[in-house]
Amino acid sequence: MSRLDSFIRRLQAQRACLDRAALLIADLPGPVLEFGLGNGRTFDHLRAILPHRDIFVFERAVAAHPDCIPPADRLILGDLRATLPAAHARFAASAVLAHLDIATGEAAASRALAASLAPLIAPLLRPGAVVVSEPPLAVPGWRALALPDGVEPGRYHLYRVAHAAE
Amino acid sequence: MSRLDSFIRRLQAQRACLDRAALLIADLPGPVLEFGLGNGRTFDHLRAILPHRDIFVFERAVAAHPDCIPPADRLILGDLRATLPAAHARFAASAVLAHLDIATGEAAASRALAASLAPLIAPLLRPGAVVVSEPPLAVPGWRALALPDGVEPGRYHLYRVAHAAE
Repeated sequence: MSRLDSFIRRLQAQRACLDRAALLIADLPGPVLEFGLGNGRTFDHLRAILPHRDIFVFERAVAAHPDCIPPADRLILGDLRATLPAAHARFAASAVLAHLDIATGEAAASRALAASLAPLIAPLLRPGAVVVSEPPLAVPGWRALALPDGVEPGRYHLYRVAHAAE
Repeated sequence: MSRLDSFIRRLQAQRACLDRAALLIADLPGPVLEFGLGNGRTFDHLRAILPHRDIFVFERAVAAHPDCIPPADRLILGDLRATLPAAHARFAASAVLAHLDIATGEAAASRALAASLAPLIAPLLRPGAVVVSEPPLAVPGWRALALPDGVEPGRYHLYRVAHAAE
């Protein structure tokens, strides 16, 4: 499989997981959190499939297509290690969906970064919230969900935040 | 359609056109020319589907994944407006496939750049050669080919260089 093949499969997996997540949270209230704006493609997809949700984007420095930049009051600029702790009060256990795409091409570094960020993201999410991520995450109380049909295990990841009783 | 949807379709169209081009040139000799290395994904795809061809890559400055950088003797570094005229003697009417992906996100600028480069590329190609391009190109003697099934008109472009008698 060429890198072009692999990249297409990764994007298809990403889209399938976002679409599945949108269905899974349909009956729950709360905003959506996008970690990393990048070129804005997944933000654009999220607002297309979740037109009635507030979507907040965390990004270090905006470099997206001009059509794909969120309004200033929904853009949280800065390093996640600083902006996530500062966002705890604002989003405390309210967010219903989080998308974390920080795969950098260097698997070990991506996993280490994700592992350091996940405990900072967890307090923002409500019970029943869905997390869509690459790389994989291991957080107490987050249960891995089956992937949509056609998505190979390991290409993208879906988790559901447990309810307190679980 | 979101930008994520659109991007996936573009990559699928690109791959389908490259795969089709590889079949179309199967009975013709000659090297393959890749204009723009970028991250190296399409170069990696070309060498996967054309393992017995010499593939030469023209690139201004290499920023590809380390696994996707061609050997130094097949990498032609510099601005295409300088390296293409200099390559006429080396490739004079010998290349069998050219892939030009210079869509920059700004359609008018991409088309103007492609229009200025196409006359410099044409002398490198043999009769019967196939050109895969985005944006579209208009070159005397290049005939637009039907796109593979599933590729929407305008997403990517295929041309065949006419034989002298055509």
